[in-house]
Amino acid sequence: MKSKAITEHKKLKGKIEIALKAPVSSLKDLKIYYTPGVGEVASHIARHKKDFRELTIKNNSVLIVSDGSAVLGLGNIGPEGALPVMEGKAMLFKQFAGIDAFPIVLGTQDAEEIVKTVKYLSPAFGGINLEDIAAPRCFYIEERLKNELDIPVMHDDQHGTAIVVLTGLINAFRVVRKRMKESKIVILGAGAAGNAVAKILKKSGARNILVLDRKGIIAPGRRGLDKYKKELAKITNPQKIRGELKNAIKNADAVVGVSGPGLIKPEHVRLMAQKPIVFALANPIPEILPAEAKKAGAYVIATGRSDFPNQINNALAFPGVFRGALDNRVRKITDKMKIKAAYAIAGMIGKPTPQKIIPSIFEKGLAKAVAKAIKV
Amino acid sequence: MKSKAITEHKKLKGKIEIALKAPVSSLKDLKIYYTPGVGEVASHIARHKKDFRELTIKNNSVLIVSDGSAVLGLGNIGPEGALPVMEGKAMLFKQFAGIDAFPIVLGTQDAEEIVKTVKYLSPAFGGINLEDIAAPRCFYIEERLKNELDIPVMHDDQHGTAIVVLTGLINAFRVVRKRMKESKIVILGAGAAGNAVAKILKKSGARNILVLDRKGIIAPGRRGLDKYKKELAKITNPQKIRGELKNAIKNADAVVGVSGPGLIKPEHVRLMAQKPIVFALANPIPEILPAEAKKAGAYVIATGRSDFPNQINNALAFPGVFRGALDNRVRKITDKMKIKAAYAIAGMIGKPTPQKIIPSIFEKGLAKAVAKAIKV
Repeated sequence: MKSKAITEHKKLKGKIEIALKAPVSSLKDLKIYYTPGVGEVASHIARHKKDFRELTIKNNSVLIVSDGSAVLGLGNIGPEGALPVMEGKAMLFKQFAGIDAFPIVLGTQDAEEIVKTVKYLSPAFGGINLEDIAAPRCFYIEERLKNELDIPVMHDDQHGTAIVVLTGLINAFRVVRKRMKESKIVILGAGAAGNAVAKILKKSGARNILVLDRKGIIAPGRRGLDKYKKELAKITNPQKIRGELKNAIKNADAVVGVSGPGLIKPEHVRLMAQKPIVFALANPIPEILPAEAKKAGAYVIATGRSDFPNQINNALAFPGVFRGALDNRVRKITDKMKIKAAYAIAGMIGKPTPQKIIPSIFEKGLAKAVAKAIKV
Repeated sequence: MKSKAITEHKKLKGKIEIALKAPVSSLKDLKIYYTPGVGEVASHIARHKKDFRELTIKNNSVLIVSDGSAVLGLGNIGPEGALPVMEGKAMLFKQFAGIDAFPIVLGTQDAEEIVKTVKYLSPAFGGINLEDIAAPRCFYIEERLKNELDIPVMHDDQHGTAIVVLTGLINAFRVVRKRMKESKIVILGAGAAGNAVAKILKKSGARNILVLDRKGIIAPGRRGLDKYKKELAKITNPQKIRGELKNAIKNADAVVGVSGPGLIKPEHVRLMAQKPIVFALANPIPEILPAEAKKAGAYVIATGRSDFPNQINNALAFPGVFRGALDNRVRKITDKMKIKAAYAIAGMIGKPTPQKIIPSIFEKGLAKAVAKAIKV
């Protein structure tokens, strides 16, 4: 246990804690906030469910839930390993949006059990943030919960990422003076992020999207596609191209890597159209390092890392998304809202340049601007 | 919504919130507490499970979980009504023992589902406080969880109550100069509290205990006894008495009411042995009002209410019990520990009197004294 991060975590012994919003330091306090006063509140709620939110934490609470099956770039490390990540996420919820998010890591990775458990937990929460759950079961779990709960549910690895990638592309296309709907966009990776990025780009007007998984370009009729990839095959790849990345990336205007380290080579970038946009978002090691990409001709480059320019970071989106959902009593976070959120974030950069297409997560008013987009 | 409690709850909109134990106000902070630093912590934990507690909230977290089936004196009001009570409990955990307890109210009242759900939630928590779950399923749920989890599990309505009733009786017997093991003790009510009180008194040396449920004295061979009442029949009622309260209470030295309003009459008290001890703990309306009990001859009187002397309040026990369990890495809270805890609380009263057999929950050093008792 040598690294600074480990030392600091060992010092804190948990990064979040519970704080009281009112003191309970006298019998008088106790009679209001605990017995007997709380009994009146409890029975009032039982009789008037409509007042439930206003009288409890539900009006500002979000459940962060992970099964530890796809944690950061570490893969299936289980619930224990996932907990410090979820605690970190809870910190960001509070810091950036004033939301009281509680991290739960589950001792099961069975999709049906996860759905059931989250449903059982839902009464105390105003929203559900699914996190670091592996594809494809993350799609199924989110779909079920969205349909069966009356509070907003968002798998952040899908939609948080999709919103911020869209933000980046909006400004990147401004920089290179191209239009998304006339551009060819290649997405490398068809997991949680790749799937959601493809869908949000399609909904935003992109017409020529290609998605690749480990086996190559996703195309209609390709063998062994699961339900979710079949759906992708329908909405992408209009020319029904098959093959590997070099076949896909020829004349592409943008490539979005949400896959693994080193998977984009300089020769791939060289095959792209003029002023290539390269988002290499794998963490901690991107698909291609910015210097290499630049040398190969990339014009706008983004990564997932904070030590390079243009960090595509989910924390730009999720705090504001849930802030808006809670404040505006949104039951479902729709594609339209997500797209509006992406434009709101993009709009915070007055004049985008190759070095600056994305605001900092510490930008003042960010969560507020995003929250405004999340309403019916 | 007129009462002071409701107004105050409406003002607070949730009585607890999440607080950060370190700021995340710069990229530098973020790199330590979130990505990329947290990745090192996550993978360290995945490789070294033994360091899990020390690096996360688990070392100081307790899950408060209720299904809303037996809330205060209100009965089965469901999870929504239960939430403000659980929030209040979380306040007490923090205020009295510095414990970060999070309230979960479940959208199921099925025992098997509750067991499974709590098991799934357990990784992030150092202890489980079951709360306001109806008997008899509370017994089954607690038993299963105790056996199947490696963290302490306590149903506070049973054991918190039992500890504090024992505390009260220890000092009450001191006041009347009687010995518990030679005394006859009647327990009115055989739910969660009654069951646990009977067991802790038996383990503390009491030999002549009678327990009554709605149908009268629990006796071996009585028809329709469930598994838990059959167990009670075995360890209580040595003379195999049958009948109602007036049959049970004749010559009793103490009666403990954990039942409902008005169920102990003055004529019952008049049947008791000299210097009767009367604990009328039903809330908010006790089995007999202190003035009435006194008039009928009661010598030491306790209730569950803060507006009478001698309040038997679980909050005397549970914060310290969990503090000790967390600090001392106790996996199971044993009867021996609970009895030691009761003596520790009783010991805080130097010279008990009829008006003062129980310390205030605000007594300095209370949780610490209790915590010391909870170790292997």
